[in-house]
Amino acid sequence: MRRDVSDAKALAAAALQRAGVDAEHADTQATHLIDAELRGHPSHGLLRLPRIIARIRNGVSAPNETGTHTWVADALLQVDGQDGLGPVVGYRALDTLEQRVARTGIAAAVISRTNHLGMLAQYAERSAQHGWVAIALTTSEALVHPWGGRRALIGTNPVAAAVPALPKPFVLDMATGLISMGKVHAYAAAGRPLEPGWAVDAAGEPTTDAAAASTGAIAPFGGPKGYALGLAFELIVASLTDTALGTDVAGTLDDDRFATKGDVFILATPQPGTTERVSAYLDLLRAEKPQPGMPPVTIPGDRARSSHATRLADGIDVDDGLWEQLTHLAALPLTKGQSS
Amino acid sequence: MRRDVSDAKALAAAALQRAGVDAEHADTQATHLIDAELRGHPSHGLLRLPRIIARIRNGVSAPNETGTHTWVADALLQVDGQDGLGPVVGYRALDTLEQRVARTGIAAAVISRTNHLGMLAQYAERSAQHGWVAIALTTSEALVHPWGGRRALIGTNPVAAAVPALPKPFVLDMATGLISMGKVHAYAAAGRPLEPGWAVDAAGEPTTDAAAASTGAIAPFGGPKGYALGLAFELIVASLTDTALGTDVAGTLDDDRFATKGDVFILATPQPGTTERVSAYLDLLRAEKPQPGMPPVTIPGDRARSSHATRLADGIDVDDGLWEQLTHLAALPLTKGQSS
Repeated sequence: MRRDVSDAKALAAAALQRAGVDAEHADTQATHLIDAELRGHPSHGLLRLPRIIARIRNGVSAPNETGTHTWVADALLQVDGQDGLGPVVGYRALDTLEQRVARTGIAAAVISRTNHLGMLAQYAERSAQHGWVAIALTTSEALVHPWGGRRALIGTNPVAAAVPALPKPFVLDMATGLISMGKVHAYAAAGRPLEPGWAVDAAGEPTTDAAAASTGAIAPFGGPKGYALGLAFELIVASLTDTALGTDVAGTLDDDRFATKGDVFILATPQPGTTERVSAYLDLLRAEKPQPGMPPVTIPGDRARSSHATRLADGIDVDDGLWEQLTHLAALPLTKGQSS
Repeated sequence: MRRDVSDAKALAAAALQRAGVDAEHADTQATHLIDAELRGHPSHGLLRLPRIIARIRNGVSAPNETGTHTWVADALLQVDGQDGLGPVVGYRALDTLEQRVARTGIAAAVISRTNHLGMLAQYAERSAQHGWVAIALTTSEALVHPWGGRRALIGTNPVAAAVPALPKPFVLDMATGLISMGKVHAYAAAGRPLEPGWAVDAAGEPTTDAAAASTGAIAPFGGPKGYALGLAFELIVASLTDTALGTDVAGTLDDDRFATKGDVFILATPQPGTTERVSAYLDLLRAEKPQPGMPPVTIPGDRARSSHATRLADGIDVDDGLWEQLTHLAALPLTKGQSS
């Protein structure tokens, strides 16, 4: 059912507060989830909230922690997330980073022990709007098989990159799996077959049976090159943050394990005058005549922005069962948060 | 014909010196080309030398320049390559960067006005061997169409990433085009058809005719995701280095235009103790049982390393016509270099 955006955000924040989350942090987390809905990515929206709350109630998420900051070197910020909420720890790290990069030209935050950041686009976009080139990497549970391999040994390791442009930044946000496990589950629920090459079953045999694939592994995007890139991201994040690798990554798809993945933000200063050239180049691409039978050429970030504007005005579609679940969570007796 | 590696390197260095390149720089450039041969990538090997020399003789490459270094911020090194040779300017920038990153934790070199770096793997690998996580990006002539588009508007924009591991670093080095234009030319010469989806012709129509594709555009790797990534790399490099975008990029595939592309190196300090975990994880991937009909799972960098060892012992295969051409270039009367 179509819901008003303010109502949805208020409900999400209330459900978080009932689990002991301070008003400010509940607002940060709720805003990030609602923003994913607005951008047209409900897989990273309110759907995630019951798990976020279950994790708090199970004591593996400490929602009022904001992360400790240590400058281990002049341009390298080490963040111990203290099991805090992803957006709470993430935006605070980004704020600190933006202060520093003005002096150092490039700076990175390497984050461990924080919960799911949610969509990465928002973090990168925000810093690009403030004038920086931004890269965000995060590891995730092993759902992807190495190219040619049988088992889920690599995360879907998303990457976001944003570059200042007018009127709005270029914003890439993509996972390095060919498809998402959410899509596999949706196909399984609908009894739809997967396309060949998308996944393998639990024995590592290629399959188009979505139910079989849901206990198997997803292919990397882009064949051997995409495998190599997703693996590179896994190694870069684990090396810089000292966090888990492969099947040791936990805490974003379960309710009861501490988050062991890592996150990396890199900000750098573009040279003066490049924004205008970047913008003109992106306009040239937008105007490119499509190949026969192909849709118009799109620029990463444009579709999410257009969706955001539309849904902000028209409201967002929320599954009735989910809305009921959130209403229930928002009516529970107040729990004291771990650090309140 | 199979050639001894020292003979080939001596010939390459002599050909460069005859064009006015100082002995030290000739050695750096020749070593980098030979190393590409050893790694099994002759497309980035001696084949490139006649063009490198023609560019020097035509005055668009100043082979004895080493680049000026300006720390525009504490961790951001701006390099004006002064039209110098790629490996000469590149390794010098990397040396400077390695000195600085020990203090800043992350540091970047943003390079303009330098000639083709050649293979990127070597730069990233060297810094990873010295203990850093390394990322290298470079833009290149527009040969790739945007996803769904008709014209070559985006570079093949290669990326290299290296992460310390034992016994040797993880080393990724890949272009973001689905195939190389060199492969298209080779298919055209052999009268072989391309596979569907690889390229479009000069009118932007999908084609399997290699000759037609050679005046058209290559597809990005990995469909829309690969397009988005290759484009992100183009924008990141151009923004940070203030260099050309799209069809304004010149100077690595021609003999007579100044190089207008940009290069970015990023080094960062991994956390203590991560090298062992990364190494164990890579070994786990190496041992992964392949899917039916698939070759063994490979780790980026392994094949190049194995090729390097074999060819160093056995010699490298150099086309007789190319060898003759290099022999001719090495026998030309000495030219004074621009800056000698």
